[in-house]
Amino acid sequence: MPNHVMQNQTISESELYGFLGKYGIKTPACKSVGLNEKITFDAFPAVIKIQSPKVVHKSDVGGVILNLTSNEELEEARKTIIANLKRHNITLDDNDGFIVTQMVFGEELYIGSVEDSTFGNVILFGKGGIYLELYKDVCYIESNAREDEIRRALATTKIAKLFDGFRGFDYKIEWVINLVKSVQKMLQDNEIKELDINPLKLTKDGLVAVDARILKGKSEYTEIQREKKRPDFLKNERVVIVGVSTGKGKTGYTIAKNAQSFKGELLYVNAKGGELFGRKLYKSVSEISGNIDTAVIVVGAKFVIPTIHELIKKQLKNLIIITAGFKESGHDAEEEEIGRLATEHNFNVIGPNCLGFYANEERLNITFGTGVVHDGKHAFVSQSGAVLASLMDRAAELGLGFSHLISVGNAVDLRSAEIIPMLNNAKSCESIALYLEGVARGKSLCESIRNCNKPIYLFKAAKSEAAKKAAFSHTGNLSGNYAMFNGIMQSLGVKVVNTLDSLLFAPLFKDVRTIAVITNAGGPGTVLTDAIAARNKELYELSEAQKKELDSVLPPMWSHNNPIDVIGDALPDRYENVLKIMDTFSNLDLIYLLITPQDMTDALGTVKILKQYVFKHKVVPILLGGENVKDAREYCLKEGILYFTSIAQACEFLG
Amino acid sequence: MPNHVMQNQTISESELYGFLGKYGIKTPACKSVGLNEKITFDAFPAVIKIQSPKVVHKSDVGGVILNLTSNEELEEARKTIIANLKRHNITLDDNDGFIVTQMVFGEELYIGSVEDSTFGNVILFGKGGIYLELYKDVCYIESNAREDEIRRALATTKIAKLFDGFRGFDYKIEWVINLVKSVQKMLQDNEIKELDINPLKLTKDGLVAVDARILKGKSEYTEIQREKKRPDFLKNERVVIVGVSTGKGKTGYTIAKNAQSFKGELLYVNAKGGELFGRKLYKSVSEISGNIDTAVIVVGAKFVIPTIHELIKKQLKNLIIITAGFKESGHDAEEEEIGRLATEHNFNVIGPNCLGFYANEERLNITFGTGVVHDGKHAFVSQSGAVLASLMDRAAELGLGFSHLISVGNAVDLRSAEIIPMLNNAKSCESIALYLEGVARGKSLCESIRNCNKPIYLFKAAKSEAAKKAAFSHTGNLSGNYAMFNGIMQSLGVKVVNTLDSLLFAPLFKDVRTIAVITNAGGPGTVLTDAIAARNKELYELSEAQKKELDSVLPPMWSHNNPIDVIGDALPDRYENVLKIMDTFSNLDLIYLLITPQDMTDALGTVKILKQYVFKHKVVPILLGGENVKDAREYCLKEGILYFTSIAQACEFLG
Repeated sequence: MPNHVMQNQTISESELYGFLGKYGIKTPACKSVGLNEKITFDAFPAVIKIQSPKVVHKSDVGGVILNLTSNEELEEARKTIIANLKRHNITLDDNDGFIVTQMVFGEELYIGSVEDSTFGNVILFGKGGIYLELYKDVCYIESNAREDEIRRALATTKIAKLFDGFRGFDYKIEWVINLVKSVQKMLQDNEIKELDINPLKLTKDGLVAVDARILKGKSEYTEIQREKKRPDFLKNERVVIVGVSTGKGKTGYTIAKNAQSFKGELLYVNAKGGELFGRKLYKSVSEISGNIDTAVIVVGAKFVIPTIHELIKKQLKNLIIITAGFKESGHDAEEEEIGRLATEHNFNVIGPNCLGFYANEERLNITFGTGVVHDGKHAFVSQSGAVLASLMDRAAELGLGFSHLISVGNAVDLRSAEIIPMLNNAKSCESIALYLEGVARGKSLCESIRNCNKPIYLFKAAKSEAAKKAAFSHTGNLSGNYAMFNGIMQSLGVKVVNTLDSLLFAPLFKDVRTIAVITNAGGPGTVLTDAIAARNKELYELSEAQKKELDSVLPPMWSHNNPIDVIGDALPDRYENVLKIMDTFSNLDLIYLLITPQDMTDALGTVKILKQYVFKHKVVPILLGGENVKDAREYCLKEGILYFTSIAQACEFLG
Repeated sequence: MPNHVMQNQTISESELYGFLGKYGIKTPACKSVGLNEKITFDAFPAVIKIQSPKVVHKSDVGGVILNLTSNEELEEARKTIIANLKRHNITLDDNDGFIVTQMVFGEELYIGSVEDSTFGNVILFGKGGIYLELYKDVCYIESNAREDEIRRALATTKIAKLFDGFRGFDYKIEWVINLVKSVQKMLQDNEIKELDINPLKLTKDGLVAVDARILKGKSEYTEIQREKKRPDFLKNERVVIVGVSTGKGKTGYTIAKNAQSFKGELLYVNAKGGELFGRKLYKSVSEISGNIDTAVIVVGAKFVIPTIHELIKKQLKNLIIITAGFKESGHDAEEEEIGRLATEHNFNVIGPNCLGFYANEERLNITFGTGVVHDGKHAFVSQSGAVLASLMDRAAELGLGFSHLISVGNAVDLRSAEIIPMLNNAKSCESIALYLEGVARGKSLCESIRNCNKPIYLFKAAKSEAAKKAAFSHTGNLSGNYAMFNGIMQSLGVKVVNTLDSLLFAPLFKDVRTIAVITNAGGPGTVLTDAIAARNKELYELSEAQKKELDSVLPPMWSHNNPIDVIGDALPDRYENVLKIMDTFSNLDLIYLLITPQDMTDALGTVKILKQYVFKHKVVPILLGGENVKDAREYCLKEGILYFTSIAQACEFLG
């Protein structure tokens, strides 16, 4: 028999039903009657149960009778129960009674809530009964979710298909949405740590909570928001680098070198003074006159806090601490002090122990990477310096650019939750990529994403238990339940990607719906078609007129369909002719140029076409093979033509 | 109410139950009684239903009463039904009666069978009721499957967890296995096109078929097996190439050139005669004295059949038809004639329209690829010449080798079903990769795989509807239901891979269970740990003694755990020292050397270590980044060091 718990105390079914009813949640009809009170009930079939402190395991002593279809049968059942109990030597008195409950039939669903350390209250909905555990067909909804988030979350479950006219059933998805909203209200009004409505029965008249368990208790989830409005970290006019070095190869040298292109005013500080790159080296921050809005710290760890104090006098708004040697080395107190100062004096901090910051529009490059950063409209925020460094390096090689690069390092202050709204306001940024390991302040992260109208691509590391352990050892951050994290991000419309490379590539292909394939072989064309279909993208349909047009430049054996198989003996001119014709087709978002090494294939000559002409459509070569396509690969790299060497890789980022 | 259909005729519940019972399949207790016959039943609760041709919709006229718990209640219910029918003006007579059936409660499962055009009879088992459609939690079992296959198939479903001591339930997986065996027997004894037992109820006493539908009918699935035992295609002693060309760059030239290394006797035929590579060019096959066991045909399409007739006179055993221009060009009749000749004269054919054949041990290279083929123990059978060509090219570049390469082309005769047993007998082959598009003769393919004791890696193209269309347009082969194909292959123990590259890489890593990671950065190490965990591989656990040993060569800040984070400032010597120590560890199958470009990273110097020392353990570098690791990538390619450029790629093939 179910256990109805509220505030750690068992409460009666009718009290629980009353509580749920207050929030508009339907429960079975239910009535308590005295031991000898006449039963009048009207919601059949019904079940009658003895209610007595003397009877713990009701079923074992014949204290429950199911499937009663009339008040007469109820009366009869009452007598039977009394007789059953007598046989078990249980004598009832006036304090005892019966409870009569409507039996509800229907599919078993589930709704509940938990208090998560990352996200606070989170609502779960899905298939109930034993299948909750077996199929884990559940979605996760942050407790402040808006209706569009609820709908998106529900759409990730298979059980939601029952509400989609499945087999002609007339179940309404609005029932679930309203139920979720009721639970949201309940969580707002009450301190509820756990709620379990299982089963929640799906009937033709709506959802009915048959059984529930509620654990009340004070929330342990807290998020302290800074009271004052933060300055915009992305606005930098007067930047000082403290700890500039004249020693080539040193971090303080490379950063000073990279920063030179800054459009605003750039100042260098080095305790010894002198000059670097034609710029004066101030001996200290205090030597500089006027305010400083942005400072970069590259000095030794023990000089960081004294430097910050000097900077505070200059009305510091933004601070970038490259210097390592804080929390990650056991110096927690110093790191906390930095956080305290930032809050007290209302400035932003990224770091300590970070790779820096890059903003394309202002030409502000505060990173110690040695490679070039291309112009772009894509921002990348990373919790790992090494992930950022390797993707920057890969992007540089492939000619992909960025609007902003932000390495949050130990993240004493700024995290994605604070950075997303700033990027959302930045005109130069059109899409945002996030690399996350641990997540703190999950509710404000959700709120930031909710209010962001730019596409967000997210890779979450530390999904598995083994990786959580590894991440903890290098960041000290604990990662929560990945299924929940992923579910909530999906509900927020975030594109959760499964490979690091997708953080670079997915934004480039965000508007791709319809794809054409030009191939010199049928087999690989089929494999590519599968990969495109697996990503729910459409194959462009050639019209009869278009086929005719292609007939004029293709041998008669061509496939007459997309994939456009130009046949194994295709030389560059045939690819070129087909490309020129296809470039005139509209409603086409992407053309894959699939090249496999065959008898006469000239892969290099074929990719060269992409530099000889400017195509309206995005054309991406896929170069299968090895030695025979090597020169084509090298040409693409040199010329900044984005290409792939495997079909899987070429499609993995298609949203 | 359920519909019991047998041989397109509705049969009674009791007849159906009788049929199922003959195969040991439990059904509810069930009894037919006359209109006024005394009811004695002993399997409660029960349901009573009117049985009369006058009553079609029993429930609508009160002709069914559920939940009866005693013979008295049954008697009472009988009277009620008669009265109900009277109220509906239905008068019963002696030809009418009742059926009493036990009500069975339990989870709803499903078992059934279909006749598939690819595989013939296939058994399906899974979650039943509406969830059959919603969750598709079903496995597929070929009707001749052995018990190990049945077990493997069941293990792919989630519902099978119910039999695994789930929540303390005492359900036995043997119940399902025996039920599948019963269905196998039923399919052997009867001509059944469709069987649906839904729901199949899971009770504490076993599985009970509550409702069933059987469609009998003659099987349309046929497989003609060759009567005589085929010669072994992989045994070749005297090989003739018909259509050798002296024109450099021509297929007949390249094949003749590649074939020269053959250990056996090699003969060339060219209508004009002369000499090539110091070998006589015979003007015709008939000019050659003695028998020929293997012939390669590179002549024009119209000369193929006449050449075959000449070869037949030479006791031909194996024929490789490179020549194209048959079925794929609409010349179906000619292709069928080749097949007919092969059957009549019992020789093997690969092709026509194929890329050829390669056998490492015999140094027999009958392909027109221009690259080198390295020695190896891995066989690859491909339904696409282009897929084979690109993987050969990639393998050549990466230094990976093969024991056999077989391009089946149009597959007029030899397909995987016939080739697998030959490869299973070939000593030089240790693993088999298959690239399949359409599958014909599915039952014999299953039988070949069943009897093969070498690991098989399989990539199936044309999974999606869009791709099936594409494949049909280039091969004329129809592909079946991919879920079924995949399920049956899994049950056979085939490793179904999801990328073409995995066909090359997976065999190399087939015995990898436990993995260590050496990394110079925590973030990518965490991502790699997730990827390893996602493949169900184990992270090697460092003992305290091993950590001490590593302490001696690592800075104090190292992770003290696997992933072994050697810290961002690691130079090659540190990697080298760690590798040397780790190479002494046992029970370790693979070491990933994860290199991210950081401040001082020397990727090239680090990968060079792999050429300076011979490590006992497999060590695979993962080079993240772009420009900064370019020289290391090039070094690996040049030196034949297998490496990857992304974490996802490096793990996708881990079985």
